[in-house]
Amino acid sequence: MRIVWSIGDPHGIGPEIILKSFLKLRDSGHTFLVSGSFSVMEYYRNKLGLPITLTSLSDRSSIDSTIDTDIAALTVLSICEPETTEPGIVSPGAGHIAMESVRAGAELCATGICQALVTAPIHKEAVSLAGYADTGHTGFLGKMFDVDSPCMMFADRVSGLKVALATIHEPLEKVPGLLREMDLDGFLMALEASLKQDFALAQPRIALLGLNPHASDGGVMGREELEIIIPSINRLSANLRVEGPFASDGFFGSGKYRNYDIIVAMYHDQGLLPFKLLAFDTGVNVTLGLPIVRTSPDHGTSFDIAGKGIASENSFIESTLLAVTIAKNRQQSSLRT
Amino acid sequence: MRIVWSIGDPHGIGPEIILKSFLKLRDSGHTFLVSGSFSVMEYYRNKLGLPITLTSLSDRSSIDSTIDTDIAALTVLSICEPETTEPGIVSPGAGHIAMESVRAGAELCATGICQALVTAPIHKEAVSLAGYADTGHTGFLGKMFDVDSPCMMFADRVSGLKVALATIHEPLEKVPGLLREMDLDGFLMALEASLKQDFALAQPRIALLGLNPHASDGGVMGREELEIIIPSINRLSANLRVEGPFASDGFFGSGKYRNYDIIVAMYHDQGLLPFKLLAFDTGVNVTLGLPIVRTSPDHGTSFDIAGKGIASENSFIESTLLAVTIAKNRQQSSLRT
Repeated sequence: MRIVWSIGDPHGIGPEIILKSFLKLRDSGHTFLVSGSFSVMEYYRNKLGLPITLTSLSDRSSIDSTIDTDIAALTVLSICEPETTEPGIVSPGAGHIAMESVRAGAELCATGICQALVTAPIHKEAVSLAGYADTGHTGFLGKMFDVDSPCMMFADRVSGLKVALATIHEPLEKVPGLLREMDLDGFLMALEASLKQDFALAQPRIALLGLNPHASDGGVMGREELEIIIPSINRLSANLRVEGPFASDGFFGSGKYRNYDIIVAMYHDQGLLPFKLLAFDTGVNVTLGLPIVRTSPDHGTSFDIAGKGIASENSFIESTLLAVTIAKNRQQSSLRT
Repeated sequence: MRIVWSIGDPHGIGPEIILKSFLKLRDSGHTFLVSGSFSVMEYYRNKLGLPITLTSLSDRSSIDSTIDTDIAALTVLSICEPETTEPGIVSPGAGHIAMESVRAGAELCATGICQALVTAPIHKEAVSLAGYADTGHTGFLGKMFDVDSPCMMFADRVSGLKVALATIHEPLEKVPGLLREMDLDGFLMALEASLKQDFALAQPRIALLGLNPHASDGGVMGREELEIIIPSINRLSANLRVEGPFASDGFFGSGKYRNYDIIVAMYHDQGLLPFKLLAFDTGVNVTLGLPIVRTSPDHGTSFDIAGKGIASENSFIESTLLAVTIAKNRQQSSLRT
């Protein structure tokens, strides 16, 4: 497999965790390519004193020969070279490099030159200052590939936990309305198809959490369970292994979550809170429903520790390994059909 | 200390966990009294074959002499004797016994005959069928003592975690509005006063969670942090050690929660989900702001396993021990003032 790593915000921990991951993965049998900026990678390599040879590449058409002749060196596709690199600083220039590196990486996957994209973290404010309307990877890639609502999922190899979000970065106030408007049946069917294709699960067991406390206790606290979630489960349960809605506190507290392949949370914190408690350092963010394979670590740019050499590369390594697994599963899946 | 245990729903696991707790606590130096039904306690004692002598008491005025002359026996104040006891069955009669036992127990504390009330779980539906408007302990006791909004708090001795809820059993949809309407300053000041009095904390460190994902990322996803939570923190921070708002997922995932004496969650699942993950079997529910001391286990009636002898008494024992601690702290606190 050939994996492309987008550099993330040049002022965050992205370049550092890419370099550290390369040290651990370069003998894995896969090849790696950074989409971003040579000077930025060189800056962090030198600052941290890491024993890595960097190769600059500006012409995408020569990727094949460049990477394959020297797998001990890390090849950097130069998208843009900034004048300075300043760890910890929010800047539109850095936001621009971050997003164009994602775009280039996604294109390399779409054309089959690379088999998966792993994105280092970007900084929403920097991306916004750079003039992008979509400040997150999921929305940006969705638009790029004309996919209406790609699904944000989190997976952790260590705990076995997988969580998908029915709504993502929304004010809490909007969540009940969005849940009423969305096509929950379609969302769950697409999720199941992705789990079959990307995770090689024959019949994924899906658990839905309730929106309200105690999953509404039969409608006493909120109506979304009775009016939205339960009807959807009833419509789908002939063909899908989908159960719920479960009260989120007892579901996690009792360990019941271990009985399911994936847990669907109705909103961001309901899914991410237990996920980060159970999988902080090894969690992986996966975008389902795209024509390309895309994963990322479940942490942010950590501007406060950028350039200090203390960032953990564990989640980035897990993201890369999961991207390889998904890419392989997709190949197998397409061979079967 | 003399502790009163309210029996809970006679068809749930309450009587069983009371009996099992008594076996472990009867030599603790404290005395215990059940507020409820003698025949129900006898039914479970016999069914489970537990070596406990039960003493029936119908006249409250003789409590002193009855309990103190035989601390090896468990005294049951008979509030109401049902014709039958049927584990696992929702019934208005059971709901009636449950709530009248709470009332009697609270009265025994208010008059100083007992020093704390520990309530076994009740069943909301049974209580509602019995004609009570308030189907939860917190609201019922609040009305009984004319306390506007008692605070629901959860504490776990093992993990050290304490969580308070700004809103409790509300549909998620209503939470943002309730947060805007409530007197958050007053809530936090009352919470701090309770922690000083009940938990003997000189200067409790209080953390507030955000309402929205990423605590709104500076207002990008929701406005409640900027308009409600941060202004409240700013007004109070001269006198209280209050910090936040924190993004709930990262706050728990990073272990930052360990730096605070109490965490204020904005809604039910945001507080209970991490609490039950970190403290499932030893968590205690505490009602703050009442003139009496009241605790309870953090689980429900578990009708599915009632009468089978397999319910865990751990949380009920923890509830009793914490009630003793709080009662002692209140005595100390009143001696100081």
